[in-house]
Amino acid sequence: MNEIYFDNAATMKTSLAVANKIFDVLVNHSANPSSFHKLGLFARQLIEEARKKVGMVLNCDPSEVCFTSGGSESNMIALLGSAKPRSKDKKRIVVTAVEHQSVRLCCQKLEAWGYEIKTVNPKDDNLIEQVQALVDENTLLVSVMMVNNETGDLYPIKDLVRVAKRKNPQVLFHCDVAQAFGKILCDVKELNVDLLTFSGHKVGAPSGIGGLYLRRGVKSCLVPGGAQEFGIRMGTENLAAIAGLGVACEHLTDKNLLVNYKKIGELRAVLMKRLASLEKVLINSRVDSVPYVLNFSVLGVPGQVLLNRLEQDNIFVGLGAAACSRGKASHVLKALGFGEDVTSTALRVSFGWCNELDEVKRFCDVLESAIPELRANSTMGGI
Amino acid sequence: MNEIYFDNAATMKTSLAVANKIFDVLVNHSANPSSFHKLGLFARQLIEEARKKVGMVLNCDPSEVCFTSGGSESNMIALLGSAKPRSKDKKRIVVTAVEHQSVRLCCQKLEAWGYEIKTVNPKDDNLIEQVQALVDENTLLVSVMMVNNETGDLYPIKDLVRVAKRKNPQVLFHCDVAQAFGKILCDVKELNVDLLTFSGHKVGAPSGIGGLYLRRGVKSCLVPGGAQEFGIRMGTENLAAIAGLGVACEHLTDKNLLVNYKKIGELRAVLMKRLASLEKVLINSRVDSVPYVLNFSVLGVPGQVLLNRLEQDNIFVGLGAAACSRGKASHVLKALGFGEDVTSTALRVSFGWCNELDEVKRFCDVLESAIPELRANSTMGGI
Repeated sequence: MNEIYFDNAATMKTSLAVANKIFDVLVNHSANPSSFHKLGLFARQLIEEARKKVGMVLNCDPSEVCFTSGGSESNMIALLGSAKPRSKDKKRIVVTAVEHQSVRLCCQKLEAWGYEIKTVNPKDDNLIEQVQALVDENTLLVSVMMVNNETGDLYPIKDLVRVAKRKNPQVLFHCDVAQAFGKILCDVKELNVDLLTFSGHKVGAPSGIGGLYLRRGVKSCLVPGGAQEFGIRMGTENLAAIAGLGVACEHLTDKNLLVNYKKIGELRAVLMKRLASLEKVLINSRVDSVPYVLNFSVLGVPGQVLLNRLEQDNIFVGLGAAACSRGKASHVLKALGFGEDVTSTALRVSFGWCNELDEVKRFCDVLESAIPELRANSTMGGI
Repeated sequence: MNEIYFDNAATMKTSLAVANKIFDVLVNHSANPSSFHKLGLFARQLIEEARKKVGMVLNCDPSEVCFTSGGSESNMIALLGSAKPRSKDKKRIVVTAVEHQSVRLCCQKLEAWGYEIKTVNPKDDNLIEQVQALVDENTLLVSVMMVNNETGDLYPIKDLVRVAKRKNPQVLFHCDVAQAFGKILCDVKELNVDLLTFSGHKVGAPSGIGGLYLRRGVKSCLVPGGAQEFGIRMGTENLAAIAGLGVACEHLTDKNLLVNYKKIGELRAVLMKRLASLEKVLINSRVDSVPYVLNFSVLGVPGQVLLNRLEQDNIFVGLGAAACSRGKASHVLKALGFGEDVTSTALRVSFGWCNELDEVKRFCDVLESAIPELRANSTMGGI
């Protein structure tokens, strides 16, 4: 029975081309990119080539791309690196209630540093108005993700940037595109963001590599002055993984994005239709969410129970709550107003480019046949 | 002409066993270790296996090992993660003048946060007395590296910990063993340190992976509460590189350390002897430095010129200043009291386990034959 991997939002499988590149760099080119001999210079060149490829995807100058160890570190640099620990003027930070855990944790830190955290909630269909209302002349930073990792819901970053900057032209706008990068267009010029987080292991590169776009002139940084990454981020560069990320980015052309979007859209449409035909199965993603992620609840069957049952058929999905929160109830679904019946039963199907329609069909078949028995055996009430 | 790689202190070449493991994990096991299906659980298992192997090398419990993106990040967590940004009691931090750049930069940050940085200097042969004099009841942290990255000089960590804790039992002692790990014994129980930084790419694992030992109960952390690495460090784990580091650690047994130390000691002895026979060539490392690093100056020949000349014979060495400072004059050699004539001409030979005696001999032959011409063409005065 072939494996069906529907947990791409947690980690997309590393592409063979990327793995081959990484192996080649490790075996043939490992050197310190800061070394002054030609092995070091070649390593440096590998990094700068990868940086260019990232710049192509984001439509920015390569010098505006800082490689990091991943999305969480990028978020940390974007949020904490723009702030000052001893802020006395109680500057304001505006974020949504559905940001990634790493952003939320940084906000707790910022609050301890004396910042005022204001939260907007996409539950109400007036996110733009909420941001407009909360951004004031004392606001340092707005941070809104582009695509939610648990639901695939898409937020109108371009419009949010516009209203935020209209209220305060000095405000920094940070956007976490970990789930959007390589899947929908993330053109920093069009979005007009100042900081943008992306992650490697959501696009076929390994975990442990990611990056932060910093608009020219933006100096967000945890510890300034390091010799690497334009002084934004110190530490010997993750050479092989950076080169691998470059290879992954070669495939993230606008054209491929469109082709894949259409293909995955068809998968999602079939999945939606089949799920809609099942009794007491609720779709938790918005209708207009990106097709790569679909969050749904089979009422009466705890998410983990269903996940385990699917695993018996070699099908792998995510829990409703993101992998990063490891079993805690989803703060996203709660913020979006879903009750315990939905949050405790939520599952996340997240597609990668390699997924095919027959996988969706087999998934639905297994689901359909499994639900009655699982519900009969469930100790959950209400069904 | 075979390549002679003598820049192992900058980056040791990735071992084939490590590269193979990384490739295998990337191709066959890439998943998010926080995912709740068996692919995720297997990934988690790979991490915990590697953690055990690190624990064996450091003689600590695996739960005291936090994986990071490398030595610089570990140093950052150790230094900044123990401090509070709004310190009003002007707590003291004691460091040496020859720490790694990442420690130095963190100290600048700590100073800006209101800490008092006190510097000890191993130049004078009373490091223990200096630490004893400076640690007081108001001291939060002492940070001393075990082996200097530019000179290979070895510092008496065990004794330093003893005197520091005698003066203040609450003091945290951090030791950066990036250049000692896998080369000399780094037994945290024997050293009695609280925090200890190690790096993967100095022992045959790739750059981008490293770790921090935190004695049980020590909660140094930049942003607390993440779901990964015991809440010390958030972000999806660098799965493949962690597994690779585990493989690298398998070879770091006490027995191998001793065998390699002896072998490299012989290489260094020959190198020392040959260098001593050359006119106006100075050894900048201490006589009792570890054998893996030898820093020397060919007076009258700028380091970069000699480095380039050696490169023509496929020999790769480091500049006296560490790769991480990228061309700036070495703060280490300056702190140790060397003048411009020495710092501007310093080269660093750093051995890996694979280096052999005939490489040292060829290196010395090339050096001997190159020096007269280079000196004749040099615009430097004094020779």
